[in-house]
Amino acid sequence: MLIALDAMGGDHAPAAIVAGALLARRELGIEIALVGDRQIVEAELARDGVTPSGIEVVHAAEAITMEEHPAQAVRAKRDASINVAMDLVKRGVASACVSAGNTGAVMASALMTLGRIHGIERPALGTLAPYTPSGVLVLDVGANADVKPNYLVQFAHMGSLYAERVLSIPNPRVALLNIGAEETKGSELVQDVFERLQKSGLNFVGNIEGGDVHKGTVDVVVTDGFTGNVAVKVTEGVADFIFGELRTTFYSKLQYKLAATILRPALLKMREKMDPGTYGGVPLLGVNGVVTIAHGNSDARAIRNALRFASEGVSSGMLEAIRSTLGRK
Amino acid sequence: MLIALDAMGGDHAPAAIVAGALLARRELGIEIALVGDRQIVEAELARDGVTPSGIEVVHAAEAITMEEHPAQAVRAKRDASINVAMDLVKRGVASACVSAGNTGAVMASALMTLGRIHGIERPALGTLAPYTPSGVLVLDVGANADVKPNYLVQFAHMGSLYAERVLSIPNPRVALLNIGAEETKGSELVQDVFERLQKSGLNFVGNIEGGDVHKGTVDVVVTDGFTGNVAVKVTEGVADFIFGELRTTFYSKLQYKLAATILRPALLKMREKMDPGTYGGVPLLGVNGVVTIAHGNSDARAIRNALRFASEGVSSGMLEAIRSTLGRK
Repeated sequence: MLIALDAMGGDHAPAAIVAGALLARRELGIEIALVGDRQIVEAELARDGVTPSGIEVVHAAEAITMEEHPAQAVRAKRDASINVAMDLVKRGVASACVSAGNTGAVMASALMTLGRIHGIERPALGTLAPYTPSGVLVLDVGANADVKPNYLVQFAHMGSLYAERVLSIPNPRVALLNIGAEETKGSELVQDVFERLQKSGLNFVGNIEGGDVHKGTVDVVVTDGFTGNVAVKVTEGVADFIFGELRTTFYSKLQYKLAATILRPALLKMREKMDPGTYGGVPLLGVNGVVTIAHGNSDARAIRNALRFASEGVSSGMLEAIRSTLGRK
Repeated sequence: MLIALDAMGGDHAPAAIVAGALLARRELGIEIALVGDRQIVEAELARDGVTPSGIEVVHAAEAITMEEHPAQAVRAKRDASINVAMDLVKRGVASACVSAGNTGAVMASALMTLGRIHGIERPALGTLAPYTPSGVLVLDVGANADVKPNYLVQFAHMGSLYAERVLSIPNPRVALLNIGAEETKGSELVQDVFERLQKSGLNFVGNIEGGDVHKGTVDVVVTDGFTGNVAVKVTEGVADFIFGELRTTFYSKLQYKLAATILRPALLKMREKMDPGTYGGVPLLGVNGVVTIAHGNSDARAIRNALRFASEGVSSGMLEAIRSTLGRK
């Protein structure tokens, strides 16, 4: 299994990306095509010494920055690393694509190069909410700011298949993000979706409120890309705020500082558990290929984990499951 | 200034409500009309000994529970405590109404009894996000699941006036909650609202992402009631999760437990700062009266703080400011 890795995408590209590829190759045995400017990527590899077998460089003349308009840049720069990486997947050379670059550009490139699975109206970006005991898949978290009821029903199906195949959760509990637990709560959109999910054949357990997403009582949370994006970013913001407050508290008095020194290993472990880098990446579901989007500020470890995550996505047969369950011939 | 307090609303009513009224009377000198079943409320007061002057009981034969359908219950039970309390405000007997009861019922009762300020299309529920250095007003957080662009523009105006008058922030920075910082980001709705806010005359500072709400860089965050409700509840859920994890960590080893004992006072102080009860209540803006909604699980201290919050709302002249700035004659 070869995975195409966008070497030019991410805040710490190419250094962290190349370092992550080497980790994944050495620790997990994953074969990787590093896609980017050959000279730059090879220079990065050279710092490490002799490049191990199973890591190859595929040249891409251009790169898309975080600031560029996603769809425009993807169209204008046909030789951008993300486009070349997607093309490797399209041609069957690579089994999956991983990028920590401009999220909008990764989505646009996936749509343009791989296309949607026939029958899927819109792809969805999922994320594994890390602030839960078991991990909960929330989707969509940003691919679709404007939605129609049927998109959310398809997100629910894709999320359920993903939870089953990749997260190994039998008969996943699917919930609809809403502002109250009762059926009659919420916007016209979610009331419509609620009815459709009841008839979907999924293990639909009803509405879930924002405060309960992190309780581990459901496996898949379905929402539109606007609300989902806000929810996920608020989660990160609150965690940063609380850990910041803890730091300030610990430094405010000498005895607190000493006590914090004792707690340090446990706090670091807790913080790591909640770090998006632990999962490494989030899946883009509904396109014709396994696409994993890593956090923009990914370090080498996060890239290694994203590569593992992508390889698990391929092995799970999730893509074929979505095609055969939801796709139209 | 007399404040009408719904003695029958809230998870710990009437005991916590009556106790909160006594605290507010004794510590803050606020005059209070306790609205509820006279026998029950007087029995609660009797436990405390001699009732201080400035606390009176106004009888209401019925009460609305947390489980009832808000609008239906408000219409069916004309003598419900919340309706009687709102009526005191309408007749000018009380200057404000405070309730920890069924939020939907408080909103429905306010709309039906006090009505909207002429010219305001929809009232909005605001909340002071406590996870920030200075406090940020987020609105709407649940009054309107479905919105039109102009509602959000009015929310922005009301929020700005509120921040100026009640929070004493000169020229408040108003931001639009969105899934990206750029003008072209987000749903059709927010793109439309963005343009309108640019022309609003407010100190509009642009879009804000979910992860930045808690950074204290803006004073007012405008959003629809669906997204706002999810954001606020996710905030509470994440905080509960993190503090729960901290507790588990502290109990996992003897030396952690000892270190945590030293940190305990600081952690409690931090938790208190983040507790919604510290503010006590959230304002319902756009109706013809000062209405403060307290958290359902309010204890006596939270009720005391909600009463202070309501009295500050009255003194600030915020209601008149909204009427004269936004209201139509």
